[in-house]
Parts: sequence; structure tokens; C-alpha cells
Amino acid sequence: MRIEDLDTPVLLVDIAAMERNIARMAALCRDAGVALRPHAKAHKSPDIAAMQIEAGAVGICCAKLGEAEVMAHGGIGDILITTPVIGASKLMRLVQIASQARVAVVADDAGNIGEMAQMAQTAGVKLDVVVEVDVGQRRCGVQPGEPALALAQHIRGAEWLNFRGLQGYQGRIQMTGGYAERKEAADAATALLVGTAELIRAGGIEVPVLTGGGSGTSAIDAAAGGLTELQPGGYLFMDSRYAAIEWNDGNRVPFETSLSVLATVVSRPDANRAIVDMGHKAMTSDGGPPVPIDLPGAAFAYGGEEHGELSWDGPCPLALGDKVLFRPAHCDTAVNLYDMFIAARDGEVEGVIEIAARGRTQ
Amino acid sequence: MRIEDLDTPVLLVDIAAMERNIARMAALCRDAGVALRPHAKAHKSPDIAAMQIEAGAVGICCAKLGEAEVMAHGGIGDILITTPVIGASKLMRLVQIASQARVAVVADDAGNIGEMAQMAQTAGVKLDVVVEVDVGQRRCGVQPGEPALALAQHIRGAEWLNFRGLQGYQGRIQMTGGYAERKEAADAATALLVGTAELIRAGGIEVPVLTGGGSGTSAIDAAAGGLTELQPGGYLFMDSRYAAIEWNDGNRVPFETSLSVLATVVSRPDANRAIVDMGHKAMTSDGGPPVPIDLPGAAFAYGGEEHGELSWDGPCPLALGDKVLFRPAHCDTAVNLYDMFIAARDGEVEGVIEIAARGRTQ
Repeated sequence: MRIEDLDTPVLLVDIAAMERNIARMAALCRDAGVALRPHAKAHKSPDIAAMQIEAGAVGICCAKLGEAEVMAHGGIGDILITTPVIGASKLMRLVQIASQARVAVVADDAGNIGEMAQMAQTAGVKLDVVVEVDVGQRRCGVQPGEPALALAQHIRGAEWLNFRGLQGYQGRIQMTGGYAERKEAADAATALLVGTAELIRAGGIEVPVLTGGGSGTSAIDAAAGGLTELQPGGYLFMDSRYAAIEWNDGNRVPFETSLSVLATVVSRPDANRAIVDMGHKAMTSDGGPPVPIDLPGAAFAYGGEEHGELSWDGPCPLALGDKVLFRPAHCDTAVNLYDMFIAARDGEVEGVIEIAARGRTQ
Repeated sequence: MRIEDLDTPVLLVDIAAMERNIARMAALCRDAGVALRPHAKAHKSPDIAAMQIEAGAVGICCAKLGEAEVMAHGGIGDILITTPVIGASKLMRLVQIASQARVAVVADDAGNIGEMAQMAQTAGVKLDVVVEVDVGQRRCGVQPGEPALALAQHIRGAEWLNFRGLQGYQGRIQMTGGYAERKEAADAATALLVGTAELIRAGGIEVPVLTGGGSGTSAIDAAAGGLTELQPGGYLFMDSRYAAIEWNDGNRVPFETSLSVLATVVSRPDANRAIVDMGHKAMTSDGGPPVPIDLPGAAFAYGGEEHGELSWDGPCPLALGDKVLFRPAHCDTAVNLYDMFIAARDGEVEGVIEIAARGRTQ
């Protein structure tokens, strides 16, 4: 079956391009001697996580506990939960997963660590804990230096907790357009994390893992060598925004765009416009509008939740029933609308990849 | 169980407020002698559709075929599909549903109508067809007047198709702030549809149904009397944007806000800010950011896909683990992120309502 014969809107992944991206990031990290722990929030699929691990990743990251539950259930054996897990009900679920897979979780609060220690002891499960440090993202995390040291000591003091290291993610710089500017900011973020690790080590505490980084800074972080583990997610699919940044001096973009949504022209109201069956419910807009592929001169605008509008200055070249491919501006949230990827190779449908953790925001 | 004890982020519906909204819209239409066919794209739940029909609705609208399949499977017996169904594969699915429920579909193209006629004949199923007219939305639909008449004649000429009437929906004016301006625009849209119906009737063709309208113009449309059937969806939950418009001269807002997302504070990085576990994957942004409820002085900003940030000029009044309710700016797309509503009454959890058609964009 050709992709053009699929009912639409449908989420497509160019499986060959995705496989190449998986191999490239694995090689990039292997060559730099840094561990790779891809972020599963991008794909939410245990099947793809398994492909990443097969290619050399040490494990995966999950943004949420619910995602981690699906991954553990799907056979993924090493998981880092990259946002704090708060409250008794969720901590109970956390120790549950920790009995199925090796699970580490970030923390940035002494009270949370105390509750976690108690829950781990009650369940008789050892938990790995990573201190989240704010390296400039201004989201979760304690400040670098003394505040992080205090939490590390707190974790060390808890019998059932194991201090694994530090996480520092600077999400704000991942899509900085200019390479030099992005490199300066990435190096500054890593320096904060490395400095904090040195402070903790000076107190006699081991810091095995410094984890962080994203797709946009992956090559920079791998070369810089401060982080021991990278967490890129988007390299798998490459948002249209990622493809637009300056990757290095020669701007050799190291990854391929592999994700698209196929839509159908469902109305041709006048000579210059076509309406497609893809609106906000089939394509998220939080990263900007999607980009029509191979359709020169076409401008896209959302037509509400169920429709999109393509317009031209000149005549519209599309007929009713024609299929159009769109590139998401933000792949992670677009994937989260769908229950499955259709995997295609050279335009031929190869199979279905379940997005088993779709909607697992808890 | 209290809602505060739920794991978050979670989609809540205040079931008493929703029931009152259902009753109010039913009464508004009954009093005006106009049929009510609520749009199920808002809730995507056969259970809620059944409540609307129980309260007096003649049936429901669906935006997509996949939604209609779920509704028919869930026992809903009368469905209008409000966007064109294009292509052989989808038309085959359409005649399939038409054998389970009374199904009407809109069309705005002669070729599509021809294919539909053939498919209906092959399946031995009679299909009701409604001509979609562009009354100012500039999306799908033929122009009012002669182009609509030509399609009506085309449908009448097909043995297995039944011409049911006209659809005209002016979505652009639903949230026009001023009442007088909105009323003028709504009346103008209805006049185009009524004028077209008169033209068709003059040719000896019956036009049983004039369907259209939305929540924002519902009171205006019911009073004006041109439409025979109203299609409001959002009145069930009331977007924060709907609650802000001038409904009539005295601005008595006729419906209550009933939908919210509950989130948890997962980090307190500094004195003025709290980070919650609700980002783009738990709350859509296409209608604007969500509004924190009962939290004076708080400003909300998205912190990516998984986080939200609340900030204050003064000290943040929230502690780690505190729960915060948010009102969606666009309920329809927010609902489409979740697999279920948690129904609550006076803050007490009453049950679960499955969002069975979530993600059914095909």
C-alpha cells in the first residue's frame, strides 16, 4: 500500500530516515565517549525506545511517571524520569516501576526527597535519585553550587536512596539560530553543572552521572565533554524549526526530517484555495504552523480544529481528494495527538508503530 | 474521593454545571421552536451525546467520520457529519455507518456527490445529503444562491441520495465581543442561507433542514428563526473566551464554565514562582493560554510540553504539592488530549466519562 492510499489525517514516519538519525546520534555519542539516553517524550513508543537501545543507548528518559510505566511495561529496563515526582500517590507508583526496571528520578526539594526515602523503605526498593540543577532554563531545579550539594547530602543520608548525580537541561537555547551563540550558552550551562559536581566531589561524594542536553546542542555537548550522558529527543524526527538553525560552521545538518502528517483536500471553495482535513486536532500549533512539503508558493493557515487552508497568490494546483504532506513545527506535541505512527519506506507502508504512552501526562 | 486527591494533570467536568448547560440550551431551542443538534466534536463522548438527546436534542453533529463511527457504535441514532467526506475509502465507511444509524453528510462538490451516489447504490443504503453553503466562514461550502441550487438538483437526481437541506456555519463570528455586532453578522449569515433555501424551493425542491449556528450566536439564531436546527457545541463547557463576550444587552451569560484541568505544583524554584505539571501536552494553546482559577495575581506561562509556570509580582502563595485548577481557553482541543473526563460534583469525584472518540480525526 502506498501512503497516498491511507485515510487521513495520518501521522507518518519515514522509517529509513529515522533509523539513520538513530544511528547518527548513537555514533556521535560513541565517538565522543559520552552515554546516550534519548528522551522518549518525543516518540512515546516502547518500540522506538528499543530501537534506540539496540543502537547503543544506555537507557531512556521519560518526562512523566505514566510514560515510564508504559516503557517499563514495554520491556525498557533503564529509565530516568526527568521531572520531579510529587506526592504520595505518585511516589507509590514510582516504587512500583522501580521493581520492574532500573529507575532513576530527579528531585529538587528536600521534602520530596524525604517522602521518597520513606516510600522506598516501605516498599523495600532502592531508588536512584538525580538532583536537578537549574542551569539557566528557569523551570525546575535548585541553583547550582551549595543548594545542590545540600540535596546530594540529603539523598546520601537516606538508606534507601542512591545519589546518582546531577541533571541540568537548558531547553531555552536548543533552537538558538546562530551556532556560536548556542555553543557559548551550552558551554556556560555545562560549566555550572560541572562546577557543582566538583563541589560535591570535594565533599567526598561520588557524582557518577552528569545528564542533560538536547538535540540542538548535542554535537556541542558531545564535543565539550562535561556531561557524561546526553538526553536528546527531537533528533529522531527533527522539527521544521530544528532544521532551520545553524548547526555548525559549515551548517551540515546532522539529522533528517522524518515525521509528517498526510492530509487530504476536502474542499476547493475557489480558484486560489484548498481546504484540507487537518486542523488543530490533527496538528499542534504550539511551535508554529506546519510547513507544507513540496508545494511551492502555498501558504498554510489553520481553519479551526478540523480544517486547514492552503492558499496561493496564483491558481491552486490541487484537486479535491489530492493528498498533501505537512512537516510539524513541534514534533513532540504533534505525536501526542496520535495513537500510532504509520511507518513508511520510500512511500510504501511498512507497518504500524504504536504510540503506547500517548496522553500519559500523569 | 475529593478532586484534590486525584493524580494530575487531569481533565475535570463539573457535572452539575454541565447538566444545567444541557438543560438551558435544550430549553432555549424548545422555547424558540428550533431543533437542537449539538456538536459532538466538543466532547467526543457517546455518553454525553446521549445526555443531550435525552434532554431533547434531535441528534448530534460530528466533525469527522471516525467520530461518527464511535457515536453510532455507542448507540447514537441520528448523526450529521458537518465536513465533506472525500474519497472511496471514506465513502465506504460512510455507507457502513449509515446502515447502523440515520446519517446525513454535507457536500459541496458535484464529483463527490456522484461518487457518494454510486457508493450508496452499491451498498443499497439511502444517504441523506446536506449542501454546505459558505455564509461567510470562507472555509468549505459552495457560494449561496445558484451554485447551491445546482448541487441540490444534482442530489435530487441521484436515486440513492436524499436532499435534506442546507448547512451554513459562520464560525468566525462566534466570539465577536460585542453583542450588536455579532447579532448583525449572524443575521446576515442566516439571511444568505434562507435566501438560498427560497431559491431552491422556488424550483419545486423541498428544503426540510437549515442547519448551522454555534454557541456564541445560539440565542440570536434561536430568536431570529431562520435556521431550523442549531449546532452549538461549546455551550457544554464554555471556553474562557466565550465567558468573556457580551451575550446580550444585559450580558447575562446563559451558560456556566464547567471544564477545567487540575495540575500540581511540582517545583518551587524561587519565592515568586511555582512550576506545575501541565504543559502543552496537557493543555492546548491554540485558543490562548489557560486561566488559573481562584488564584489572584498569578500569571501563567507555558514551560514547554510538560510544565507550566505560575508567577507573581509578590510572593508565590503555593507550596510543593498544592493543586491548581485551570480553565481552558479552547475546550474542544483540550478535551482531545485526554482519554476521559473525571466527573465531579461539589468537588467530589462522581465517576469517569470516556472520551471514546478522542483522536478520531479521520
